[in-house]
Amino acid sequence: MKKAPVLTPRADDFPRWYQDLINKAELADNGPVRGTMVIRPYGYGLWERMQQELDSRIKAAGAQNAYFPLFIPQSYLTREAQHVEGFAPELAVVTHGGGRELEEPVVVRPTSETIVNEYFSKWVQSYRDLPLLINQWANVVRWEMRPRVFLRTTEFLWQEGHTAHASKAEAHDYAAHIHRNVYADFMVDVLGIDVVPGRKTAAERFAGAINTLTLEAMMGDGKALQMGTSHELGTNFAKAFHTEYLSKDGTQELVWQTSWGATTRLVGGVIMSHGDDSGLRVPPRLAAVQAVVVAIKGDEAVTKAREIGARLEAAGIRVRVDDRTDVPFGRRAVDWELKGVPVRIEIGPRDLAEGTVVLVRRVVDPHGPGGSGGPGGKESVRVDELARLLPVVLEEAQNQLLRESRERRESRTSEVRTVGEAAEVAAAGGWARIPWALLGPEGEAALAGHSASVRCLIAEDGSVPESDDAPGNVALVARAY
Amino acid sequence: MKKAPVLTPRADDFPRWYQDLINKAELADNGPVRGTMVIRPYGYGLWERMQQELDSRIKAAGAQNAYFPLFIPQSYLTREAQHVEGFAPELAVVTHGGGRELEEPVVVRPTSETIVNEYFSKWVQSYRDLPLLINQWANVVRWEMRPRVFLRTTEFLWQEGHTAHASKAEAHDYAAHIHRNVYADFMVDVLGIDVVPGRKTAAERFAGAINTLTLEAMMGDGKALQMGTSHELGTNFAKAFHTEYLSKDGTQELVWQTSWGATTRLVGGVIMSHGDDSGLRVPPRLAAVQAVVVAIKGDEAVTKAREIGARLEAAGIRVRVDDRTDVPFGRRAVDWELKGVPVRIEIGPRDLAEGTVVLVRRVVDPHGPGGSGGPGGKESVRVDELARLLPVVLEEAQNQLLRESRERRESRTSEVRTVGEAAEVAAAGGWARIPWALLGPEGEAALAGHSASVRCLIAEDGSVPESDDAPGNVALVARAY
Repeated sequence: MKKAPVLTPRADDFPRWYQDLINKAELADNGPVRGTMVIRPYGYGLWERMQQELDSRIKAAGAQNAYFPLFIPQSYLTREAQHVEGFAPELAVVTHGGGRELEEPVVVRPTSETIVNEYFSKWVQSYRDLPLLINQWANVVRWEMRPRVFLRTTEFLWQEGHTAHASKAEAHDYAAHIHRNVYADFMVDVLGIDVVPGRKTAAERFAGAINTLTLEAMMGDGKALQMGTSHELGTNFAKAFHTEYLSKDGTQELVWQTSWGATTRLVGGVIMSHGDDSGLRVPPRLAAVQAVVVAIKGDEAVTKAREIGARLEAAGIRVRVDDRTDVPFGRRAVDWELKGVPVRIEIGPRDLAEGTVVLVRRVVDPHGPGGSGGPGGKESVRVDELARLLPVVLEEAQNQLLRESRERRESRTSEVRTVGEAAEVAAAGGWARIPWALLGPEGEAALAGHSASVRCLIAEDGSVPESDDAPGNVALVARAY
Repeated sequence: MKKAPVLTPRADDFPRWYQDLINKAELADNGPVRGTMVIRPYGYGLWERMQQELDSRIKAAGAQNAYFPLFIPQSYLTREAQHVEGFAPELAVVTHGGGRELEEPVVVRPTSETIVNEYFSKWVQSYRDLPLLINQWANVVRWEMRPRVFLRTTEFLWQEGHTAHASKAEAHDYAAHIHRNVYADFMVDVLGIDVVPGRKTAAERFAGAINTLTLEAMMGDGKALQMGTSHELGTNFAKAFHTEYLSKDGTQELVWQTSWGATTRLVGGVIMSHGDDSGLRVPPRLAAVQAVVVAIKGDEAVTKAREIGARLEAAGIRVRVDDRTDVPFGRRAVDWELKGVPVRIEIGPRDLAEGTVVLVRRVVDPHGPGGSGGPGGKESVRVDELARLLPVVLEEAQNQLLRESRERRESRTSEVRTVGEAAEVAAAGGWARIPWALLGPEGEAALAGHSASVRCLIAEDGSVPESDDAPGNVALVARAY
């Protein structure tokens, strides 16, 4: 008898699989106000670990955390023309406070460049105050017409970095440093997601930026997800808010700025990159629970599970003990697979007698160890070998997820020469590479009619181009979330 | 020649001293929307450390972090009658989103009991789902008519815990556990602030609670600050949102709930508890920077400062190196005193020759070591003794701050028998203890005319009373922030 699938299979309906997984793995619920979400503990645990990993990289890049208000006077937004044009349609507006109508309505921040600059202009006086490197962890609101949990939500959580520098070159280098050494490093190394670093075209730039750097990843269905962006703002906001400094030469100069953000959308990226038809697969370096020790039944198994749990924790593994022997074992096994815990350690009656456990890998390399251990990579392991073996198994899982992510992108990327070919590749769930000289802004505009877009420009050698029109630039075309 | 004071002396004008300190130590600025604040990096660093310490205690109490939406449908608030009565006057209301007027206005959360219960009622089915222990770190908005930075702000940051239990006794015990083992432990042990745990009178309870536990601390001017509260909600919200579970006996039962919060107000509490006329004094366990190594002048001093900084960091001290030799030393010394870094290590030309440094304690015990070391507790110390000495000096500073906080409260608390006497003690910057049987709700109401209030009720033996009218209850009366 074939069991009913736990989730809608990805091949049948990817968006429905995504929603199924989020519900059944208890990651999030839709909020009562359209487009908002409730992040449940297991989903929030993923975000918390992302925060820890990103925060330490941001601090290593010299930025300090601060906090700016949620409410921004409406008039601030209008000071930078492109910025207000970009964000006006998405604003939530507070008109009443404390039981009275407000004299000036305030907007709920969609991003904080304007209010940050209001204060930077007070804090920055001389070249000695530069660079000023600030980050904040916060919620923002952008009214969303086609919401999807984690990917597009009216309210989302993020970090937003805001910096001011004495020169264009410094600001450029800092935006690139965040792009490469904070974001790309974190996404590849911790999330196990293969990302393509590139430059946004003028049409896709952040509202108010002179240059937007992006990281694009291919999801399980071949669509692209923008994973994070780092912007050079030039002097656009500095002009609007008079953010100036006294230079070493005694002249008043505008500061050069950057801003950069990564959001709870990354949780969606992890799901859509690594999830399979049994559920989520969490990369071990991200996982709040790297291994779950499951007592199948009986008090003796519970005692043993706790003992093993304590031993693994002492060995530096993030471990949880599942001692709910009143819940059928099969249901618990399915649940841990749904939640994507990298390793499951099962303790049954026979194991107790023999001093063994059954180690089940959630991520199986068909060519590697455990791949020959039967379905799901099960193998019997001696208890006293666990603490030595587990770090190896976790490392293999981490590497395997990144390998699968990279192989997917490579195998589904094609070289094309026309808009039509690019649109066709994108429609089939692939990425198209086309010389930007052949596509150009007109071709880019035409892609919209095919629900595709230029995700980014890449230089001939794979690096990030210094301008849209650098010779040899290649445009990466795909459908995107 | 007497130097002009860096801050308005506390004895002259305490509120102005507070505002001066916040400006000059670069802790926060007022935000552009009335009552909001910008928390600057040094102030946010204090909050970040509070978050770390509170979060680990909250997790040890079994609660998991999650995230609920900022926007709550207005109709939710009205479901619990007392709750809406308490919060309606303080609400911020969003009427427009995405360029259109909303069909139902949404409120910006002033607290999350209502929206949390909407989801608890979905997540809780059977007794197996209990207890449900959730915490969230978030911003909330309560429109503030008389704002003061950190203490009363229209938007503030906090954690709010929300739990559901199978019985009244369990909920009671959990609220008490948070009160004692999370909040009081953190405030005394990390913040070095003496707190009085007590029970709020019916008049001072949280809107919707059946019991509110509080922690009250005496500030430098003798006024009280409510440092955190833990509420028993009974079944009030469970009734309004139908949060029910199937009991072991097969009956449908309402859950019993708690909620509890601590906010950025605690930063204000640290300032007003420990600050002196030279600035802030940060308790070492809280301090993001426990020791600053200051190179007075010259490259050699900078090299030595970095070397000492690295050595102390390796010894587990949170250290910063001040190598800004282009800024006059005196100005930097004043700045570190303003910022209240517990220990300053100065390296001058003579020190380099002699292998010593000057160790300056920010917190001096007049009867303890360093107290005889001259003004400000300065002493010459051999470089190779620093790593051994510093943990001792930091521990002494931590203990001294708590001792001062406790001695202040004890020396300024008086036993009284009438409303008039209580009001007099409060007006003079003290706390009055009066038998609740003598004061009662009428006396409590009369205190308002004297700008004083009952901060909490305490049992005869100093414990937290189980009811307002337990025999022997003592009311603690004070003016409060």
